[in-house]
Amino acid sequence: MNYDAHLDQALNRLHEEGRYRTFIDIERTKGQYPHAVWRKPDGSEAPVTVWCGNDYLGMGQHPVVLEAMHEAIDATGAGSGGTRNISGTTVYHNRLEACLADLHQKESALLFTSAYIANDATLSTLPKLFPGLIIYSDALNHASMIEGVRRNGGAKRIFRHNDLDHLRELMAADDPDAPKLIAFESIYSMDGDIAPISELCDLADEFGALTYLDEVHAVGMYGPRGGGIAERDGVMDRIDIINGTLAKAYGVMGGYIAASAKMCDAIRSYAPGFIFTTSIPPAVAAGACASVEFLKTDQELRAKHQTQASILKLRLKGLGLPIVDHGTHIVPVIVGDPIHTKKLSDMLLSEYGIYVQPINFPTVPRGTERLRFTPSPVHGPSEMDALVSALDNLWSHCALNRAELAG
Amino acid sequence: MNYDAHLDQALNRLHEEGRYRTFIDIERTKGQYPHAVWRKPDGSEAPVTVWCGNDYLGMGQHPVVLEAMHEAIDATGAGSGGTRNISGTTVYHNRLEACLADLHQKESALLFTSAYIANDATLSTLPKLFPGLIIYSDALNHASMIEGVRRNGGAKRIFRHNDLDHLRELMAADDPDAPKLIAFESIYSMDGDIAPISELCDLADEFGALTYLDEVHAVGMYGPRGGGIAERDGVMDRIDIINGTLAKAYGVMGGYIAASAKMCDAIRSYAPGFIFTTSIPPAVAAGACASVEFLKTDQELRAKHQTQASILKLRLKGLGLPIVDHGTHIVPVIVGDPIHTKKLSDMLLSEYGIYVQPINFPTVPRGTERLRFTPSPVHGPSEMDALVSALDNLWSHCALNRAELAG
Ligand SMILES: Cc1ncc(COP(=O)(O)O)c(C=O)c1O
Ligand SMILES: Cc1ncc(COP(=O)(O)O)c(C=O)c1O
Repeated sequence: MNYDAHLDQALNRLHEEGRYRTFIDIERTKGQYPHAVWRKPDGSEAPVTVWCGNDYLGMGQHPVVLEAMHEAIDATGAGSGGTRNISGTTVYHNRLEACLADLHQKESALLFTSAYIANDATLSTLPKLFPGLIIYSDALNHASMIEGVRRNGGAKRIFRHNDLDHLRELMAADDPDAPKLIAFESIYSMDGDIAPISELCDLADEFGALTYLDEVHAVGMYGPRGGGIAERDGVMDRIDIINGTLAKAYGVMGGYIAASAKMCDAIRSYAPGFIFTTSIPPAVAAGACASVEFLKTDQELRAKHQTQASILKLRLKGLGLPIVDHGTHIVPVIVGDPIHTKKLSDMLLSEYGIYVQPINFPTVPRGTERLRFTPSPVHGPSEMDALVSALDNLWSHCALNRAELAG
Repeated sequence: MNYDAHLDQALNRLHEEGRYRTFIDIERTKGQYPHAVWRKPDGSEAPVTVWCGNDYLGMGQHPVVLEAMHEAIDATGAGSGGTRNISGTTVYHNRLEACLADLHQKESALLFTSAYIANDATLSTLPKLFPGLIIYSDALNHASMIEGVRRNGGAKRIFRHNDLDHLRELMAADDPDAPKLIAFESIYSMDGDIAPISELCDLADEFGALTYLDEVHAVGMYGPRGGGIAERDGVMDRIDIINGTLAKAYGVMGGYIAASAKMCDAIRSYAPGFIFTTSIPPAVAAGACASVEFLKTDQELRAKHQTQASILKLRLKGLGLPIVDHGTHIVPVIVGDPIHTKKLSDMLLSEYGIYVQPINFPTVPRGTERLRFTPSPVHGPSEMDALVSALDNLWSHCALNRAELAG
């Protein structure tokens, strides 16, 4: 058995398709973000502006977050030292769960090490709690939801992205007495479009289904207290399980679900991905909690974030670039080919000091490869000018189509 | 559909079996560990000594670790702000991976958010790289390995715990040309027994199989540089993939695999659990790296750890308590019944200020419920005296058998 040959084959496939990923080594300097230092493979360094981070509001360098982390390290140390059940539950974890339950106006919340594992563990555990459960899953759901739905081999139906008619059709075809769950996201992170949450809840009511909503790219940024799109739209109470992350707008790390006390208690008790792993460090919980609390009241960062996104989209549209605009903070420019996308990304980095990672399959469907820009309150006018003029130059230089694939 | 009734049912099952878990709220004070504060459900507080943590060496409060975390927060901020591929690779992540590759004398290492997800993601991705892969998995492997082996429905064979004959029998019965992998742990954390690593490697050689070793409860603590049992036994180079955690002996958080450059590159490129999640905060990586480097040279903590474990086992044996002793740092006292175990744990906590969590099914097989003590270099003679006398009293008080179930 030649194992190496198989590895070569697997890796060559990626090289041939132009979607082998090279990680860019970035060092952020606190207080300077989005400016950072790029360490090149040859060891030399160059300044860059990060345009693809998911620290959407710059909370990863906010003093209130850093202060809370420093304090917790001084008070209690580095790691939690155990799983939640075996010595790894601290006042920091409990406080953060209470703060998240309050954010989403649910009875309880349950912390995981990431939103990835929160999705995977919860969705794969629900069929154990509701035997015969059928999960209706949006076709563009995140990989972590797909993994959760697939695992354990429960019944699943994939409905076309945001397609209420298709979902209704699938639900109507199933046993009316079977337990059901509709799983979807609020903002789909690669296009920036939004689910029709209220209509999905109507369907759930009609067919007696539970609702599961991933608000990973919305928490902190939408709703009067940062509760996400469901809060903004006044439908938070219609969602049975809300999933969120502490690693994007909140700028730290960790994930969670918020739901009824019973639901959280059951997931807590039955999900291996929750039970059998060390809990997040107290300092991480403390930083995340400070961030969530800060964004419950601060409206300024949220407003500025939206303004920045609007300006960038307007300016890129002005150049006729093929951007996708669904009215959110995510600004994708479709290139449509992995090799061109990588080339553009490389040129932006090396010639303009602009860091935006190419987004390829399997993160997005083949043929929709893109550059995905994430403007934030910390991207000022000069950074914006530099980006817009670099893209203008490159689009001309590479004789790329303008506006061809815009959505 | 009455979803609440199903949740009630699921929760009641746990209550009836006496294995509903209540998390104890513990606040460690830096520098005082194993002393901590227990916050009771009524809000009052009491001092306790933690005897069940997995911060085995007390590195979670070591100045070298905390200093590294503080520095990284000051230098770079809170979170990484992205997945490894999309702006979330920093010099801290790269440095830690290099430090782990060196620890295990492998070409590469790959960081995950936890050893749980490292096991799950790696083991579930290997069948994609080696089509037709058969995984031979020790019957007592950790939940995270089980989840990884099960997912994706690849071929699997479960061999009886540490049973070489059974494994040989299973391997001999399979197609000689099929790709194969033997997955096992070095120290099994609930009994503290050790796998016959060298003999398992012999079998792997004989049948042309890869080897996958979880060293989660050994890294930092065994081997001249903390490389684990495989390092201690001089067989590290015979293991294809080593899995470890940064959350136990190293005192912080995160997990990893160490393997050939090609293997790591392929897992990096194909494992959803690696690709689609935010990387660990730079400060966590920095703290972990400091801890691993420290334990590569310091022999004192490792030696003291073993001494403490020997003393505790000797003293508990002296009392005739049914302890399991396989010559490692883990000290399980078998109670054999979930209700008694919980009762003992409750009495230790409330009457003696000793915190040791009851260990029940599914963490251990039913009928082997236990108290699992983890002595460390920071548990001094007075803590040890208090524990031994408390157990002596309780065993008499509850008229429990002595030495009955000892292994
Ligand atoms: C929609 C969605 N859900 C979940 C996740 C996982 O979040 P985390 O980074 O906390 O694991 C991501 C991205 O990482 C995401 O885009
Ligand atoms: C054998 C084993 N492997 C893996 C893990 C998971 O490690 P982590 O806490 O880093 O997820 C654990 C315990 O948590 C374990 O006992």
